[in-house]
Amino acid sequence: MFEARLTQASMFKKILEAIKDLVENANFDCSPAGISLQAMDNAHVTLINLLLRQDGFETYSCDRSLSLGLSLPSLSKVLKCANNDDSMTIKARDEADTVTFVFESSKQERISDFEIKLLDIGNEQYGIRDSEYSAVIKMPSAELQRICRDLSILGDVVTISADKAGVKFSTSGDSGSGNITVRPTTDSSIAAEDSTTIDSKEPVTLNFALKFLSFFTKATPLSPTVTMKMSDGVPIVVEYSIEDLGYLSFFLAPKLE
Amino acid sequence: MFEARLTQASMFKKILEAIKDLVENANFDCSPAGISLQAMDNAHVTLINLLLRQDGFETYSCDRSLSLGLSLPSLSKVLKCANNDDSMTIKARDEADTVTFVFESSKQERISDFEIKLLDIGNEQYGIRDSEYSAVIKMPSAELQRICRDLSILGDVVTISADKAGVKFSTSGDSGSGNITVRPTTDSSIAAEDSTTIDSKEPVTLNFALKFLSFFTKATPLSPTVTMKMSDGVPIVVEYSIEDLGYLSFFLAPKLE
Amino acid sequence: MFEARLTQASMFKKILEAIKDLVENANFDCSPAGISLQAMDNAHVTLINLLLRQDGFETYSCDRSLSLGLSLPSLSKVLKCANNDDSMTIKARDEADTVTFVFESSKQERISDFEIKLLDIGNEQYGIRDSEYSAVIKMPSAELQRICRDLSILGDVVTISADKAGVKFSTSGDSGSGNITVRPTTDSSIAAEDSTTIDSKEPVTLNFALKFLSFFTKATPLSPTVTMKMSDGVPIVVEYSIEDLGYLSFFLAPKLE
Repeated sequence: MFEARLTQASMFKKILEAIKDLVENANFDCSPAGISLQAMDNAHVTLINLLLRQDGFETYSCDRSLSLGLSLPSLSKVLKCANNDDSMTIKARDEADTVTFVFESSKQERISDFEIKLLDIGNEQYGIRDSEYSAVIKMPSAELQRICRDLSILGDVVTISADKAGVKFSTSGDSGSGNITVRPTTDSSIAAEDSTTIDSKEPVTLNFALKFLSFFTKATPLSPTVTMKMSDGVPIVVEYSIEDLGYLSFFLAPKLE
Repeated sequence: MFEARLTQASMFKKILEAIKDLVENANFDCSPAGISLQAMDNAHVTLINLLLRQDGFETYSCDRSLSLGLSLPSLSKVLKCANNDDSMTIKARDEADTVTFVFESSKQERISDFEIKLLDIGNEQYGIRDSEYSAVIKMPSAELQRICRDLSILGDVVTISADKAGVKFSTSGDSGSGNITVRPTTDSSIAAEDSTTIDSKEPVTLNFALKFLSFFTKATPLSPTVTMKMSDGVPIVVEYSIEDLGYLSFFLAPKLE
Repeated sequence: MFEARLTQASMFKKILEAIKDLVENANFDCSPAGISLQAMDNAHVTLINLLLRQDGFETYSCDRSLSLGLSLPSLSKVLKCANNDDSMTIKARDEADTVTFVFESSKQERISDFEIKLLDIGNEQYGIRDSEYSAVIKMPSAELQRICRDLSILGDVVTISADKAGVKFSTSGDSGSGNITVRPTTDSSIAAEDSTTIDSKEPVTLNFALKFLSFFTKATPLSPTVTMKMSDGVPIVVEYSIEDLGYLSFFLAPKLE
């Protein structure tokens, strides 16, 4: 028997909104430690890595590990039926072929339960190494979202160059070419959430498909800041921490010039 | 000569928005008692019943009864030209083939008049009996609108079950199945507008096409609450009262299982 | 070398939004006096006349006159990359084949620069006479926008009649016909921005294509008021002043009945 209760269904809605356009079916791997999801997008270009730690749930009970294979579009439809301030409980019996989501309003005047059929999805594990990166950039997540949206209007590929002085996003297309440079925050009166910090070991320049970076920024509502980790020749990591609960990170291989 | 003036054109705009997608042409029957409209939707599945009492108008003058046959899409276009805080005057001469709508801004710095051709629409009268119902549910109109919208994502048919303990809306579809249960409000500190009450004589369970119920909820801006009346084998009544003026109600026959 | 800096990039964005759907390519003529643009719409029905005086810029330097031929859709894409409170600097070298737009956030934590290729556009000059008009109407720009939007729902052609007593906008179509009359403001407690004044030498009645008048009202964000100048047989002038900077005006020939 698996049962986990989140105080805010809205947090889970935001996670689904961030990944549902990249992956169609995915396993939510439930273990005593928490819920994790690893999946590649349909085009096998990006890797999604989600972790929700058990101690971030209001209640969490998992006798033994189980994989909940779900259609993300179906799950997203069910989650649309949760009010933002509803609580959410996930329930699954061992060996069951369905999972139940229960949404309760704060005063319990409205209770909803939804049942979704489980899918049998092959379980691939992806080895994710936490290596040391040439540049680790923390910046407001809304700023990254805006930059991706703006540059997508002009071009398809973004070149990200980072060094101690700043991080530069460049693109070009038929209408023109452009660069947006974000500098590390020096004004200490600015809140951490609104600040940009760059931890640069050596300058790095990489090219990425703007389309996928833009997809990642759908996770912006999850966190006020985003962390990007870059090294030559390895995928960029774009990570959104989920307060008190875990994180959602995306990996995207650089384009060769 | 018929002439009636409403302080708020916005009220009439809301009524049109609620019915214009269900019915194309309809007679506004004007009598000394007020304005009424009875019409079936284009598919002949639902019945609309509107009453605006003469004493809810700012001024109202009707020498003898007349039927104003109007194209609701045309009327809706004209009403879009009224500001929400404009007053609205309807004018029709006896035997005339047009009706005039006059909108005046509160300071009279802008006056608009629009003329619409009258249509000759066969006048059917529908016998509406006010019977006693197994269940009469009063709930916040926005809540019913939300439930219809949410469940429409999952299925086409909603099963509504009501008893003293609550009213349950259920649906199922390819993505999954779900139930939303609303309980009667017990907390007396909650305003009447935000409360749910259930007057249940005996338990009742009926199925309805979600599409039509959803259409009815376009009347939500008319009233903070909605009343649903249900009995086995007879159409559900979904009624929105219009403050100081009358009501707009919809009838929908249950689907047989 | 040409270089001009505006404190608010948003002002230039609003200008582009107002004209980019009417004209595809246009010359920004830069001279020591300022920047001007004259262009006819693609259908050669309307004339756009823009003037931005040099003293409205934060800094302005223009050694010798040059014409910057730009694709307005491309320029509009680049301007979408400016935040509303960014400053904007336009830079062009003499004989260069590109122009550079630099956007800087107020705290300079983000600097963007975009380069657009210049186009070689034939330079037509249009003789614009400032004649005396039968009627000069100043009214809230949002009011004119609303009237054009409302009447467009009903018809294709608007008849504008102005005299001392008011200005009447009339149209008719399949759904019905209508008139909206705006009277001069008599209440002196109303702010100038919200007032309507009519300077009428003689009554005038002209017909215009609503489609083009509606296009002009895309300039509404530029100014709280709009001025219309009308005389028999000559194009109407619809003018939006741009505070401290200049104006954007449109000319549209009347339709013959």
